[in-house]
Amino acid sequence: MQAIVIHAPRDLRIEDRTPETPGPGQVKIRIRAGGICGSDLHYYQHGGFGAVRLREPMILGHEVAGEVEALGEGVQHLHVGDAVAVNPSRPCGRCRFCLAGQPNQCLDMRFYGSAMRMPHVQGAFRESLVCNEAQAVVVPPGLSFGQAALCEPLAVCLHAVRQAGSVLGARVLVSGSGPIGALCVLAARHAGAREVVATDLVDAPLALVRRLGADRAVNLRDDPAALDGDMADKGRFDAVFECSGSGAGLTTAIGVARPGAVIVQVGVGGEVGIPLSTVVAKELVVKGTFRFHEEFGWAAAAIASGAIDVRPLITDTLPLAEAVRAFELAGDRSQSMKVQLAF
Amino acid sequence: MQAIVIHAPRDLRIEDRTPETPGPGQVKIRIRAGGICGSDLHYYQHGGFGAVRLREPMILGHEVAGEVEALGEGVQHLHVGDAVAVNPSRPCGRCRFCLAGQPNQCLDMRFYGSAMRMPHVQGAFRESLVCNEAQAVVVPPGLSFGQAALCEPLAVCLHAVRQAGSVLGARVLVSGSGPIGALCVLAARHAGAREVVATDLVDAPLALVRRLGADRAVNLRDDPAALDGDMADKGRFDAVFECSGSGAGLTTAIGVARPGAVIVQVGVGGEVGIPLSTVVAKELVVKGTFRFHEEFGWAAAAIASGAIDVRPLITDTLPLAEAVRAFELAGDRSQSMKVQLAF
Amino acid sequence: MQAIVIHAPRDLRIEDRTPETPGPGQVKIRIRAGGICGSDLHYYQHGGFGAVRLREPMILGHEVAGEVEALGEGVQHLHVGDAVAVNPSRPCGRCRFCLAGQPNQCLDMRFYGSAMRMPHVQGAFRESLVCNEAQAVVVPPGLSFGQAALCEPLAVCLHAVRQAGSVLGARVLVSGSGPIGALCVLAARHAGAREVVATDLVDAPLALVRRLGADRAVNLRDDPAALDGDMADKGRFDAVFECSGSGAGLTTAIGVARPGAVIVQVGVGGEVGIPLSTVVAKELVVKGTFRFHEEFGWAAAAIASGAIDVRPLITDTLPLAEAVRAFELAGDRSQSMKVQLAF
Amino acid sequence: MQAIVIHAPRDLRIEDRTPETPGPGQVKIRIRAGGICGSDLHYYQHGGFGAVRLREPMILGHEVAGEVEALGEGVQHLHVGDAVAVNPSRPCGRCRFCLAGQPNQCLDMRFYGSAMRMPHVQGAFRESLVCNEAQAVVVPPGLSFGQAALCEPLAVCLHAVRQAGSVLGARVLVSGSGPIGALCVLAARHAGAREVVATDLVDAPLALVRRLGADRAVNLRDDPAALDGDMADKGRFDAVFECSGSGAGLTTAIGVARPGAVIVQVGVGGEVGIPLSTVVAKELVVKGTFRFHEEFGWAAAAIASGAIDVRPLITDTLPLAEAVRAFELAGDRSQSMKVQLAF
Repeated sequence: MQAIVIHAPRDLRIEDRTPETPGPGQVKIRIRAGGICGSDLHYYQHGGFGAVRLREPMILGHEVAGEVEALGEGVQHLHVGDAVAVNPSRPCGRCRFCLAGQPNQCLDMRFYGSAMRMPHVQGAFRESLVCNEAQAVVVPPGLSFGQAALCEPLAVCLHAVRQAGSVLGARVLVSGSGPIGALCVLAARHAGAREVVATDLVDAPLALVRRLGADRAVNLRDDPAALDGDMADKGRFDAVFECSGSGAGLTTAIGVARPGAVIVQVGVGGEVGIPLSTVVAKELVVKGTFRFHEEFGWAAAAIASGAIDVRPLITDTLPLAEAVRAFELAGDRSQSMKVQLAF
Repeated sequence: MQAIVIHAPRDLRIEDRTPETPGPGQVKIRIRAGGICGSDLHYYQHGGFGAVRLREPMILGHEVAGEVEALGEGVQHLHVGDAVAVNPSRPCGRCRFCLAGQPNQCLDMRFYGSAMRMPHVQGAFRESLVCNEAQAVVVPPGLSFGQAALCEPLAVCLHAVRQAGSVLGARVLVSGSGPIGALCVLAARHAGAREVVATDLVDAPLALVRRLGADRAVNLRDDPAALDGDMADKGRFDAVFECSGSGAGLTTAIGVARPGAVIVQVGVGGEVGIPLSTVVAKELVVKGTFRFHEEFGWAAAAIASGAIDVRPLITDTLPLAEAVRAFELAGDRSQSMKVQLAF
Repeated sequence: MQAIVIHAPRDLRIEDRTPETPGPGQVKIRIRAGGICGSDLHYYQHGGFGAVRLREPMILGHEVAGEVEALGEGVQHLHVGDAVAVNPSRPCGRCRFCLAGQPNQCLDMRFYGSAMRMPHVQGAFRESLVCNEAQAVVVPPGLSFGQAALCEPLAVCLHAVRQAGSVLGARVLVSGSGPIGALCVLAARHAGAREVVATDLVDAPLALVRRLGADRAVNLRDDPAALDGDMADKGRFDAVFECSGSGAGLTTAIGVARPGAVIVQVGVGGEVGIPLSTVVAKELVVKGTFRFHEEFGWAAAAIASGAIDVRPLITDTLPLAEAVRAFELAGDRSQSMKVQLAF
Repeated sequence: MQAIVIHAPRDLRIEDRTPETPGPGQVKIRIRAGGICGSDLHYYQHGGFGAVRLREPMILGHEVAGEVEALGEGVQHLHVGDAVAVNPSRPCGRCRFCLAGQPNQCLDMRFYGSAMRMPHVQGAFRESLVCNEAQAVVVPPGLSFGQAALCEPLAVCLHAVRQAGSVLGARVLVSGSGPIGALCVLAARHAGAREVVATDLVDAPLALVRRLGADRAVNLRDDPAALDGDMADKGRFDAVFECSGSGAGLTTAIGVARPGAVIVQVGVGGEVGIPLSTVVAKELVVKGTFRFHEEFGWAAAAIASGAIDVRPLITDTLPLAEAVRAFELAGDRSQSMKVQLAF
């Protein structure tokens, strides 16, 4: 079985690994599609992010879908041949956060392809993967594996939208139009937002989010004053999804959000400067959002029913053998939105 | 009638002004006590804060109490001789925020002693003040005017506590133990917090908040590691009231808050740096709080009934004639907590 | 100008009235379409409902749309010829509920076609109507007046959905599939519900809500046990919109709602019996919803953009001259869903 | 070891049982005090309530406190001799509600002295009890065992208050002034309510809640119109704790609650009639509350620190040998509030 292993920045290798056998309650999945996420890219480009650094070789990947290939003992709801999206999140189910309904905050989380703990949790960019039955969510036959592999980032965005409370009838700003921003546009529309405005510093993703249903998509590099009118009378956006992770993005959000608005911080920045006095004066709510839990099932249901159409996001699909080229492409925002690998 | 007028940084004068006559629905108040607030101090020390700068002479003050001296036509609920706390907040009642139940965000607010608009809104540090009937909240005879003058900052803190949702049973951190921090300790206790920990960089206010009921009061200048144990397992505070307005205070708050906790930003900082990745990873909620509305009545009721005892905060009371000395004293945190003027 | 006037139960007359002239800030609307609502029907069939009884002749109607015919002085945003939906809600803007952001609870509300106060507030089933500029919401030319006249009941349902908090990803039950139930199906889907199940006791409306997107639509008269499986393990619905106003409907809702679920009571019942011990044991939330406010604009935007397609609901459109037949038809649920009048 | 066993209505026996030995992670408690709860009384008087009926002999009791007598293997935080309040709630920690942060809704709950499941869960009115370490919450030496035994019902009331959101500054009505109503008065005060009004149909408990801090305590049997003034302008209470479980109590609550108010249903009624149209028109929130979880620790902390003084509630303490007399006394509301047994 081949797997995509990161050893160091720009040192990505396709290596052979021994396939696993499913134990009781487990299933073996023949992975068919895997999407490259921003965190995969960080490992590839920089060897990690913030305090999270590669300390040993690690299989990358956590946005995957495939077919059930074999069943472990006692598996009840899956059958060989089922098409499934794989939920990469594995909370412990016993810590205080798991028992408080916050499993995404689990103190003993094992999330695929993450260097947060040592030894690292190996990822899912591999031809075959053994996982727990509950991680494999069946999708209907008509769906492509590429669509199914987008359940994971869509779940991130549905969780983000949920952090905003309700966006029904809301005027929404999406700050940063990469894959997560683009899926936030779709998720906000799905949740009944009245108006969705998106920003970016690059034209190509803006053109795409316009196709996805953004009412306005503005390039703040070309036109830094594009949102100035939205700041009048203390601001007009009811909710902002800040996906750039930059201080500039968050500062703009703070300027155009109306008093009492919620700014959901989706993008993972480092240390950023913010105009705290405006947060205070307008009583803004800046709220972090991190991964997801039950929203994985929501994402699968919405993609399966056609309520959310993620297909326009998949700009490129490359074979496993071209993994390095795929990662290079995923790093070029003027060329690609979501790059997927076909296994 | 004498009034305390700020002309420029450190240029505070006692001047004579013509007393006003109450119009229909108005009352004339003989001011008896006035507390010096942080914003008064900013005008005195720096001529303003952020973008808010003195552009003309302005009577300072918005924490005042006194006696009803004369009634305008049609006043129904007040009588000459009533002891009252004066609510300095005057929203317009017509703008979209007033009609949305957010009067403290009024687009045409006239808050006493504020240079936010031009001409400035003159303040309440004067021997006699004409205000609307609804601004004057009767307090019982036994209460001192000094206590009544603390309704205003207590209202700020009750509004702050309300922004946190419910703190019943909560572990609360109060970051910064000046007058607003100290009143947050009282307000959080009043709202049923299980544990209240306070911080500061100066010993004197910490000693006072301990008397007010803080379970722990730590000096982070002397012992920067005092809260390190509170960061274990992703943090243990359910709610934080950040009253210092400093990046250091907010960063500490972010470190010790448990996943999903609310950090209410009370202190007005400028541009501050924050570890955004931790806000995201722990899904923290950073929420601004600004002034108050109906909480003024809550504060008056709580002080009047004895449910909240604000007396320990009043460290100094100086006569009007010593206004300059009072402002100097209010600026020395090692000497004073709340300095009030007697008119 | 002709108007539809109710005098007593089953005594509906088409009468001539003098047209009004728009004053400052007002506009005159040539009404084109008007939908018959359940409350109109109650006046027609029973002379009122509960304590609200006809005490003088009253023009019925509050779901209307038309064209701007004339402008009063100072009107800024409307033009003669504009197609508009008319918001029948006129809160006072001064009472404590208006100033608390609850204008639909206004103590001095003047809602078209309502006998709640004396003299009654005359309604909008008339050829020409004078209203305030802010009540007339422009809709795009392509929209039919019938669609525009559905803004009002859709606003009721969007407000109802909002009362549930967020229904993103939720399993939703709609109890009662009349026009309000049917619009709740659309509104819940619009807000991102994952699954929508509808009930009724009559087949025709169930067939229609299936077309509107309900995943299941069950006739509880024919199959009283149809939801028994949904009661397993304490129930599976996250939110219920109870539109029947009946004790039986609410009791079923209480049975199938999961612990902590929200049951939004939309239908106005009288005195009904409920299993209080189950509300307690499952910690259910039963929440009333009444009319709407800003949701009128949301409804207009959603209908205008095509995000919500209300056309299938309009089963019948009759000319003004056939008003009596229209009211009879509206009372027959096996024949009609929404009956509209063309003026 | 002696235990209090209910066999059938009015058939309460003191029987000898074999003491248990603590297993790993368990402790043995020498029970010292036990309070008689409404549900104990229902078993005694009627053999159960609603669908919950005695089907085999059952030891009663779940409000108990005592001393640690012996430690099982691996117990870390308790010592022999510690005074403890015993949490009678034992959720499974594995079902979907436990993992959703709703452990009080556990599908496999084992709550002491409950006939909900078969075999029944035996109760805690016994001289010695073996429980899990986490169930035993240490209280300080100065506290009486009677006070400690009130942690359980106080936890019920703190959970109820929490269901209301925040009651800081609120006007609160407590409907029904038995032990749970009386503790709701204390809990609402503790959480910062501005005004607390209590009702009952009997004078004795009203006199007691007045001592506990109710601002008004009215006998609705003697003066049925006592709250009529509170219904003006759509009602004035922000939150109601309905502890009577009666339709009359809930109907009164609905009448005096302001639009948008929360009525927390604490009392377990059967099938009751409610004016649904008023719930709808005022958009009231009727919310069930059931037992507690982490609030047990809050209750222990509040009693231990003196923040809540429960002592006035304990009207009678009888020895184990007089259990029958204690139950008779507990059933006479004109004589007793909380009756406790001394073991």
